[in-house]
Amino acid sequence: MIGFIGLGIMGSRMAENLLKSSHEIVVYNRTKEKAEDLLKKGANWAASPKEVAARSTVIFTMLAVPKAVEEVALGEEGFLGSLREGSLWVECSTVDPAFTRRMAAEAEKRQIRFLEAPVSGSRIPAEKAELVFLVGGKEEDMEEVRPLLQTMGKDVLYQGETGKGTSMKIVINLMLAQSMAAFAEALNLGEALGLQKETVMETLLNGPTAAPMLKGKKTKILSGEYSADFPLRLMQKDLQLVSQAAYEHSLSMPSANLTKELYALAKQQGLGELDFSAIYQFLKPTK
Amino acid sequence: MIGFIGLGIMGSRMAENLLKSSHEIVVYNRTKEKAEDLLKKGANWAASPKEVAARSTVIFTMLAVPKAVEEVALGEEGFLGSLREGSLWVECSTVDPAFTRRMAAEAEKRQIRFLEAPVSGSRIPAEKAELVFLVGGKEEDMEEVRPLLQTMGKDVLYQGETGKGTSMKIVINLMLAQSMAAFAEALNLGEALGLQKETVMETLLNGPTAAPMLKGKKTKILSGEYSADFPLRLMQKDLQLVSQAAYEHSLSMPSANLTKELYALAKQQGLGELDFSAIYQFLKPTK
Amino acid sequence: MIGFIGLGIMGSRMAENLLKSSHEIVVYNRTKEKAEDLLKKGANWAASPKEVAARSTVIFTMLAVPKAVEEVALGEEGFLGSLREGSLWVECSTVDPAFTRRMAAEAEKRQIRFLEAPVSGSRIPAEKAELVFLVGGKEEDMEEVRPLLQTMGKDVLYQGETGKGTSMKIVINLMLAQSMAAFAEALNLGEALGLQKETVMETLLNGPTAAPMLKGKKTKILSGEYSADFPLRLMQKDLQLVSQAAYEHSLSMPSANLTKELYALAKQQGLGELDFSAIYQFLKPTK
Amino acid sequence: MIGFIGLGIMGSRMAENLLKSSHEIVVYNRTKEKAEDLLKKGANWAASPKEVAARSTVIFTMLAVPKAVEEVALGEEGFLGSLREGSLWVECSTVDPAFTRRMAAEAEKRQIRFLEAPVSGSRIPAEKAELVFLVGGKEEDMEEVRPLLQTMGKDVLYQGETGKGTSMKIVINLMLAQSMAAFAEALNLGEALGLQKETVMETLLNGPTAAPMLKGKKTKILSGEYSADFPLRLMQKDLQLVSQAAYEHSLSMPSANLTKELYALAKQQGLGELDFSAIYQFLKPTK
Repeated sequence: MIGFIGLGIMGSRMAENLLKSSHEIVVYNRTKEKAEDLLKKGANWAASPKEVAARSTVIFTMLAVPKAVEEVALGEEGFLGSLREGSLWVECSTVDPAFTRRMAAEAEKRQIRFLEAPVSGSRIPAEKAELVFLVGGKEEDMEEVRPLLQTMGKDVLYQGETGKGTSMKIVINLMLAQSMAAFAEALNLGEALGLQKETVMETLLNGPTAAPMLKGKKTKILSGEYSADFPLRLMQKDLQLVSQAAYEHSLSMPSANLTKELYALAKQQGLGELDFSAIYQFLKPTK
Repeated sequence: MIGFIGLGIMGSRMAENLLKSSHEIVVYNRTKEKAEDLLKKGANWAASPKEVAARSTVIFTMLAVPKAVEEVALGEEGFLGSLREGSLWVECSTVDPAFTRRMAAEAEKRQIRFLEAPVSGSRIPAEKAELVFLVGGKEEDMEEVRPLLQTMGKDVLYQGETGKGTSMKIVINLMLAQSMAAFAEALNLGEALGLQKETVMETLLNGPTAAPMLKGKKTKILSGEYSADFPLRLMQKDLQLVSQAAYEHSLSMPSANLTKELYALAKQQGLGELDFSAIYQFLKPTK
Repeated sequence: MIGFIGLGIMGSRMAENLLKSSHEIVVYNRTKEKAEDLLKKGANWAASPKEVAARSTVIFTMLAVPKAVEEVALGEEGFLGSLREGSLWVECSTVDPAFTRRMAAEAEKRQIRFLEAPVSGSRIPAEKAELVFLVGGKEEDMEEVRPLLQTMGKDVLYQGETGKGTSMKIVINLMLAQSMAAFAEALNLGEALGLQKETVMETLLNGPTAAPMLKGKKTKILSGEYSADFPLRLMQKDLQLVSQAAYEHSLSMPSANLTKELYALAKQQGLGELDFSAIYQFLKPTK
Repeated sequence: MIGFIGLGIMGSRMAENLLKSSHEIVVYNRTKEKAEDLLKKGANWAASPKEVAARSTVIFTMLAVPKAVEEVALGEEGFLGSLREGSLWVECSTVDPAFTRRMAAEAEKRQIRFLEAPVSGSRIPAEKAELVFLVGGKEEDMEEVRPLLQTMGKDVLYQGETGKGTSMKIVINLMLAQSMAAFAEALNLGEALGLQKETVMETLLNGPTAAPMLKGKKTKILSGEYSADFPLRLMQKDLQLVSQAAYEHSLSMPSANLTKELYALAKQQGLGELDFSAIYQFLKPTK
């Protein structure tokens, strides 16, 4: 049986794709409510991470923050102490490379194999099984779970030893966060100068800075309806991971740090649960 | 005869495309040296902007900063006082909307028609006649010079009344400046985290934030050779135009203003004449 | 008779101090209402800047933005064309050095003497005649009006030729803006970390970064009542003057530009008319 | 006997003041060399933190970064495991509140009393015994070591439970870092505008933003000699602690984060070992 812990926007959709491919899965989530739909579709429920461990030899985790990962793995009811030796833990959350390496070490102590496999892609690619897995760890472990990853995603890209998958992931999210903020300011400038929002958008989405992600945010920006594909507060968290990693490597990142704080200010003003493209709304003059 | 004033990286290539299409042209540049090549190819030389005016009824200007435009148009040897009534001035420089409107008013006072036609695209599109003209002013004036614009560019896009072309232009350049800075920081982060520069680049250039302009900068970044397609100091100037325009419209643009200062700092440290993609070099740790 | 144009927070108090010292004054303000109190106290009313010029040989101007100065001096009803030759214009507004020099040149063309005398100090020093005048222009002109300046301020500091007074003024305001923003963030951090606001305030106001201006903002911050001694929107304007001046001198100022945008964002969210210390309120988490 | 671990710029001077007051001390430093001077003056040498523990019941630590504190306390040769029950550890390093609380918990597990006592003041106050101790922990423990603290400082200020001393400390350092950066930009602006550096300095140091710390940096800035009273790289570290703490408390701090990155960029360009006032040098145009 396959274990799956963490059934938020991403995890629930990934787990459902495992189910759809006729895998038997046992799931756990802090609030059971979010599991109901999967349980109806045939997933098994575990009352704790520990119980997931007792019933599976491959465990996927998909959680929002490092602290949550640490809790389900190493907390009082954590799964790591209860997994059989040789089992495989596939960590899909977006965390920082230092944390990933620490988890890998904890796993190793207990003779558990560890693979990091953070994903590129948000709600819709998760639903459509079109995620891109950025994998770090042992290549043979990746090959072993490749069939499972492929039921949830379209690409499985090997990045190198533990930490490299996470590193690439936060580089991508940094780029997403900054592109979105830049697009938001450019649109607002265009409107302030008397151009039509739609015209500016079309021009930018067909010009030298057109990027697929920006095209994907068009509907939200035009409608003003920001249901979260990727919540702003999680983007802000990822920027903090970037900032922390940069500090540890003595790298100055002025722009990334300011972008981080703009998302933080938007969150502070109550936009944290909206899609991160709501940064456009945040920067827009009120009248 | 067609007048052309300003023979820098862009102007020289645009004028050459007019020549290639068998147009007779009369050119002026502050330093004659930059005109030599064109003169050999058949262009006529004018000793002053005023002399250009005496010999043509359509004048293109392509200069680096508003002050330079003002000088050639309204300075002691400026062309505006010497153009015949009804002539057409096509301003291709990147300036701010307020300046454009002031020039249009100056032209109108003297019964000269005015068209703004700033371009999207840098050295290579200028060479290949693949520029995109963002035109503001009277539509019939645009139609009149459309054949000329099409010898220099691939698209002629009407934006509305005077000021709208320039507005769209600075919106685009803002987006270019910010995307480039974001890409620079993302690459530097990837390298600091131990990833290969080429791998990070490939991943970003094929992922959700891939943008044509970034692809175009790949060679420069990999080779470390930053000959200017679009000099960093001019990008910094354009960001100042953005900042000024935003202030005039009471729009806050935190990210744009910081990016402006990063380019300014790079310029202050001597990188002004390099391509603006050298912001990557500027932000890169020295060892 | 002494002319005084511009009766806002600062100008009204400065003019009143002239009155109190038994000077006869003739005043003009765009909205007459703001002059009522002075008129009751004996000031004369002029229906236009032009009329002020007809009745005086020394004119003080104290306005919010360069455009307003230009309007009263050079507009249709402007005073500059109507002043007798040899009269003296004392410009007290905070503008940028380039603008000051342009006004000085306009005055000179008409044989009018020009003195810039921007002030350090806001509402309360204006009331108490404790302003500091930062004077640029001819020293003998300054000596001529020194008695007048001393009825409005405590110090008259000569800075050099035209432009230097304004230069020093924007340097000081930059420092005020940044100190205030720094103080705001420090207080908010202290509170977030569970320290008492009063304790943090006392510690900072008695430690190595204690500055008189910060002490003066204590009451506003503790009470949450931000009636403007110096409105936030004008501080934001001064930061724009700083940014513009820095650009013209090829100086990178990352921190000043970000601070400018934070005030701009606060203004964009409706805090423009409050005292600039309301930046604390703006940065404060809502709960 | 009193233990003292960490003999850098600060620790060596603090330990010497203990010696001067006739206290017997046993010291440890990672590189013995830095202890030589103290040993000549009568201090005892311990070959490891563990050995310090064996010979003392009160231990002071004064180190550069949290990791270093953790190493001497909990590392293989750490002192915490070897101290007698009831001993007192006084932690003077600047760390973050979360780290402090973790160390307090580690101490408590081993029945060791813990006091945090970070200091306000750099090299010169350390030398002159004029530091200010910002104490967190149990008030009776503070009273017990008050006589010792008073041989090293002029003020011992109780801040509350563990974490509060450190919290106040990083608030103060944030304010120092931002004030210095603001002063640097203001001076550079003044110079760019043609004002004398000395005049700008005098005006700012006697005006509304005059702060004692800034006065203390005058000599360094005028001479261009930046020997470290407080190294820039440590200020940058403290700003990272600020940033981390703000993130943990969901507080947006745009200005602090940018300032952090400016110091980081200065460090990246090789100025890390200079005094943090060298940020002026960093931001200064090269010609």
